[in-house]
Amino acid sequence: MAGSSEEAPDYGRGVVIKDNWPGYDLNLFTYPQHYYGDLEYVLLPRGIIVDRIERLAKDIMKDLGYCDILILCVLKGGYKFCMDLVEHLKNISRNSDRFVSMKVDFIRLKFCRNDEAMDKMQIIGGDDLSTLAGKNVLIVKDLVGTGRTMKALLSSIEKYKPNMIKVASLLVKRTPGSDGFRPDSHMRDQ
Amino acid sequence: MAGSSEEAPDYGRGVVIKDNWPGYDLNLFTYPQHYYGDLEYVLLPRGIIVDRIERLAKDIMKDLGYCDILILCVLKGGYKFCMDLVEHLKNISRNSDRFVSMKVDFIRLKFCRNDEAMDKMQIIGGDDLSTLAGKNVLIVKDLVGTGRTMKALLSSIEKYKPNMIKVASLLVKRTPGSDGFRPDSHMRDQ
Amino acid sequence: MAGSSEEAPDYGRGVVIKDNWPGYDLNLFTYPQHYYGDLEYVLLPRGIIVDRIERLAKDIMKDLGYCDILILCVLKGGYKFCMDLVEHLKNISRNSDRFVSMKVDFIRLKFCRNDEAMDKMQIIGGDDLSTLAGKNVLIVKDLVGTGRTMKALLSSIEKYKPNMIKVASLLVKRTPGSDGFRPDSHMRDQ
Amino acid sequence: MAGSSEEAPDYGRGVVIKDNWPGYDLNLFTYPQHYYGDLEYVLLPRGIIVDRIERLAKDIMKDLGYCDILILCVLKGGYKFCMDLVEHLKNISRNSDRFVSMKVDFIRLKFCRNDEAMDKMQIIGGDDLSTLAGKNVLIVKDLVGTGRTMKALLSSIEKYKPNMIKVASLLVKRTPGSDGFRPDSHMRDQ
Repeated sequence: MAGSSEEAPDYGRGVVIKDNWPGYDLNLFTYPQHYYGDLEYVLLPRGIIVDRIERLAKDIMKDLGYCDILILCVLKGGYKFCMDLVEHLKNISRNSDRFVSMKVDFIRLKFCRNDEAMDKMQIIGGDDLSTLAGKNVLIVKDLVGTGRTMKALLSSIEKYKPNMIKVASLLVKRTPGSDGFRPDSHMRDQ
Repeated sequence: MAGSSEEAPDYGRGVVIKDNWPGYDLNLFTYPQHYYGDLEYVLLPRGIIVDRIERLAKDIMKDLGYCDILILCVLKGGYKFCMDLVEHLKNISRNSDRFVSMKVDFIRLKFCRNDEAMDKMQIIGGDDLSTLAGKNVLIVKDLVGTGRTMKALLSSIEKYKPNMIKVASLLVKRTPGSDGFRPDSHMRDQ
Repeated sequence: MAGSSEEAPDYGRGVVIKDNWPGYDLNLFTYPQHYYGDLEYVLLPRGIIVDRIERLAKDIMKDLGYCDILILCVLKGGYKFCMDLVEHLKNISRNSDRFVSMKVDFIRLKFCRNDEAMDKMQIIGGDDLSTLAGKNVLIVKDLVGTGRTMKALLSSIEKYKPNMIKVASLLVKRTPGSDGFRPDSHMRDQ
Repeated sequence: MAGSSEEAPDYGRGVVIKDNWPGYDLNLFTYPQHYYGDLEYVLLPRGIIVDRIERLAKDIMKDLGYCDILILCVLKGGYKFCMDLVEHLKNISRNSDRFVSMKVDFIRLKFCRNDEAMDKMQIIGGDDLSTLAGKNVLIVKDLVGTGRTMKALLSSIEKYKPNMIKVASLLVKRTPGSDGFRPDSHMRDQ
């Protein structure tokens, strides 16, 4: 989970979980009973995510210049992350003198393979996307892997001529087959 | 916002906002700056909703016998209420010895008027609804007015043969044209 | 619980609980099991207090001009209110560009009756009170009744020459025998 | 910060911060503006402490058999940790069917050197300590270093014949001069 900005590209990486990180002992934290026996350790405690989202919200607000935001929550995975992010954005708004309006819309991505074995993506479930024109759009997703999905989504969204698109992703996989979407810059200008 | 159960039908009404309730002074609470000038008073402080949801979660858990829950969040309005409810349900689960698994799906209702001027409702955006068979389903919505939408939704969902359907609604309007869905019992057995 | 300021003396009264207010039904909220049977209704849901404290923190920050604060928490009753207030003050500080340092000290008041049947008050448990000189002091207490205790405390504190004293009280009783401390202005300048 | 229990002595160590742990980048989290320039990295994000306290509360409840608790908060350092712990204990109580009453008292320790250059400790500011007799006492402190203070406190408290004493410490220093109080077992039976 990360936020980048032009001035400080380094912290764009977010919290990095190294391959040799053994994780925290399960007995240090609470976890749902039905995971008992299925978990071995805690890679990332919830509280770190909570703290990280607080900062991410602050960076997003700064990056967007405290302007109105249209948030596109990519279901299903992204909803919890999105809600927490919105909560923090509202908290900043409530405690500041700036005027920031936020709208949340929910979309779902559907992939259909066509003849040439390429993925075709369809955006379903949201409002009329033509309303994105001229807006500052924040796409909120749970996971960026190879970046292919995100690239397809971005190019779909760009057709609606938003003023700005930024992407916030909870997790970024270190994926060998990544084909271009730069996961070290999870929030990018169009 | 309310929860009912067979043993205690009285508190099913939830927090009742009477017609002559003048509301709280705006200066008692914080509110987003962009509402400044547009608001006159606070009908229902956020904290009452937070507290009420905590109890609602407890009642739902009890009503469902601490069984697995499939939550159907009705977008767009219901998402914040749904997320808060899920948070409290998870909190109960984390702090109890019972095993409760929760899955959340998001649906959207689309209405099309047909020849005979009747509303036809379409459920879009969710998972394959055939997976509802045998499940304990909790429908979470922001508002119940006349109850017509909820009745249509319930009859659609019932076709998929869930084990149980319950409805949690954040708000219930006192609507003269109500045609049958009992708003004083916001959580009902099939 | 209330906050006053010079510009807006009206909302200084805080949330007023009228004598004929019947309260909320117990079944609307959760409450500790050991109160079961001893409670009849809920006068003031926790969430209203939470919301009110958020605004109070904002007003305090504004009143104190975002200057450093020395918080005197009057034990035992005031600690929960004080902690919540501090939490919100820190939240504002974290989300703003202003520099506000906060220190918390804990005091306890002890009363001894002297010959002339007057209460004498002793402040115990805190740091060396001479460090209050020149500071912006916020006294946080759970309850103001007749105002006599608060007046005695204020006159004790004033001897240490703070720059400013303000008082935040969670509750203010409508007390017939009130002898001067104005409960409708819970935060006052020296 | 740690909790121990007889069955699982291993996790008694809590979250261990190793000497070679470089910490988190400051830009990953929010922090008070007035620390800007003075901090280099984040050793322990707030959220980990929050999560850890949630589990600690659960362990404490279990260890104390869901019996009434008298909490002794050692000021000044321990108050924030204590309040958070109490909040989680209350949350467990609110969401369970068990009857747990909690009382919080605040004490402060004062040290005076006597002739033989030994520390003498005085407990000030609390209620009459004779009320500890027969109670389950939870001492909450921010830091255990050599353990000398804690040993002195425990032996003072034991004189009042509580039923049980347990200690919860937010932090435990790895101190070479430790003289016996076992920091790997931060919650101990008398």
